[in-house]
Amino acid sequence: MQAIGFKKSLAIKEEKSFEEFELPIPSPGSKDLLIKIKAIAVNPVDYKIRQNSAKDTELAEPKIIGWDAVGIVEAIGQDVELFKIGDEVFYAGDITRPGCNATYQVVDERIVAHKPTSLSATEAASMPLTSLTAWELLFDRMNITKEKDAGKTLLIIGGAGGVGSIATQIAKQVAGLKVVCTASRKETSDWCLKMGADAVANHQDLVSECEKAGFIAFDYIVDFVNLNHYWDDMVTLIKPQGHIGSITGSDKPIALNKLKNKSVSFSWEFMYTRPMFSTDDMIEQHRILKNIAELLDDKKIIPTTNTVLNGFTVENLKLAHEMLESGTAIGKIVISF
Amino acid sequence: MQAIGFKKSLAIKEEKSFEEFELPIPSPGSKDLLIKIKAIAVNPVDYKIRQNSAKDTELAEPKIIGWDAVGIVEAIGQDVELFKIGDEVFYAGDITRPGCNATYQVVDERIVAHKPTSLSATEAASMPLTSLTAWELLFDRMNITKEKDAGKTLLIIGGAGGVGSIATQIAKQVAGLKVVCTASRKETSDWCLKMGADAVANHQDLVSECEKAGFIAFDYIVDFVNLNHYWDDMVTLIKPQGHIGSITGSDKPIALNKLKNKSVSFSWEFMYTRPMFSTDDMIEQHRILKNIAELLDDKKIIPTTNTVLNGFTVENLKLAHEMLESGTAIGKIVISF
Repeated sequence: MQAIGFKKSLAIKEEKSFEEFELPIPSPGSKDLLIKIKAIAVNPVDYKIRQNSAKDTELAEPKIIGWDAVGIVEAIGQDVELFKIGDEVFYAGDITRPGCNATYQVVDERIVAHKPTSLSATEAASMPLTSLTAWELLFDRMNITKEKDAGKTLLIIGGAGGVGSIATQIAKQVAGLKVVCTASRKETSDWCLKMGADAVANHQDLVSECEKAGFIAFDYIVDFVNLNHYWDDMVTLIKPQGHIGSITGSDKPIALNKLKNKSVSFSWEFMYTRPMFSTDDMIEQHRILKNIAELLDDKKIIPTTNTVLNGFTVENLKLAHEMLESGTAIGKIVISF
Repeated sequence: MQAIGFKKSLAIKEEKSFEEFELPIPSPGSKDLLIKIKAIAVNPVDYKIRQNSAKDTELAEPKIIGWDAVGIVEAIGQDVELFKIGDEVFYAGDITRPGCNATYQVVDERIVAHKPTSLSATEAASMPLTSLTAWELLFDRMNITKEKDAGKTLLIIGGAGGVGSIATQIAKQVAGLKVVCTASRKETSDWCLKMGADAVANHQDLVSECEKAGFIAFDYIVDFVNLNHYWDDMVTLIKPQGHIGSITGSDKPIALNKLKNKSVSFSWEFMYTRPMFSTDDMIEQHRILKNIAELLDDKKIIPTTNTVLNGFTVENLKLAHEMLESGTAIGKIVISF
């Protein structure tokens, strides 16, 4: 099969930052599906892994990354129960296994769902990783429910990115929250409003920008940009007994103590935790993706694809990484096969 | 009224670390009860405030601390709905108002409940602050419920202290958790087992001690000793998607990032948050204390009083602080009036 990967972590502009490889089609394990891929999306985690996983020595085998795909089931393992050959599916995948930057991939059925029927492959490919991330963060980690939380306030730091775009939609549609997104440019601000944000606040001078928008403090805050950078703003803006979530990691230790007097909670979300640790509830990812497909088919939420690059080529993959690395991408970048 | 307090932060052995003062009996505000106090308990927060609140200059007025009391309602404000004169009550109180180290105190009715009828004043006095802390941490902050969590595992770091003693009991009785407590001496270990712990692990070399007791990882961990000191042990011992809670504060920034791959959540609990910020749900503390009183009267849990000092005197208050400051106290220290 055709695969695009790398053996060394290189700047994206360098010739061998991505190379094409001819690899054998993988065989599905007992709970696996073999997928023929039709479209993929790229995510910030992709370039972080590309930049860091082969920094010092060249790898013996090419590393194939990418975890966001739409495709067709071509073969199934003997214990597969949820899918049959020919099904159209969408999924993010497992960071401990080879990714979707290839024409074929194997993936555990418990983290896959049927593709929303009303969407094209390039529309659907934008959804799995970001939907799983936003859903797990808001509902599984932060325990937000419509019943107890409808009408409460959520600040999304980084509203226009991939996760921010879907988080805004499901926070409103699934939980009935009032959502303020941060964005600093006209295009990103407009995009956030299109996703359903009730208000937009500029990243710069965030506390006073929120106040101008009529929000002194929030029940919930999620960070999709930089935890260390926004920590003090979040400490100020979170309500007593509030809950902060993040997906970004943190390069320096955190002054967690600043949240103590308010009895605030903090949650990490890492979309790969369930498959990585083979948790007992790994099948939740199948259920979440099924919910997302229904919301999409019911037009309750809209796909977040904003750029489509036609053709699975080294050039397009390099271009997609370059756009993401700039930090200014709006919505999702998808590559059609 | 007689009150015992201080004007300067002094080592407990110094003569004026506590002094007796004659102060006017306070008047209840509209939602307040005026309480004639019968017994109080001391808590680590007391000596932390004594040591730190008047370090540099002498205060103009004496500072009266202590937030754990049993007493009788002597007068009520015009908007009081839950209590009448003559009721026996128990409560922790509000850190922003004068404490219970006095013969009279005013307290908002929303953070008070009727004293458990089957307990003596010195038994009941041990319960409010620690019960509120443990209950809020486990059930309000960490969202533990019997329905979804019965049979799951909880590690309590510092099982024999005041909060550890009641946390062990309610984790078992209210939520059906399997509880491992840390303790390092024979007396503290025996106390933890008396409180209902399923197993005890030594603080030293905690990871391997837990393994010896048959526990590789825990769904929940709560820290009642020192967050910075036990951080790396907790990072190792928490399960993927687990939840860590603490009440201790942290004197250095925390390597929060170490919990990211497991998508772990962290919660602070500070018992004073609700009264301090006058949160809309402040009356939850009334409800929690009511639940605790019922559990005590039904003999589902037992009071954690382990030492009673007879007489509200400067000497007894100094002795109680000295015992707590040693860090080796077991259960609660109560002073009867």
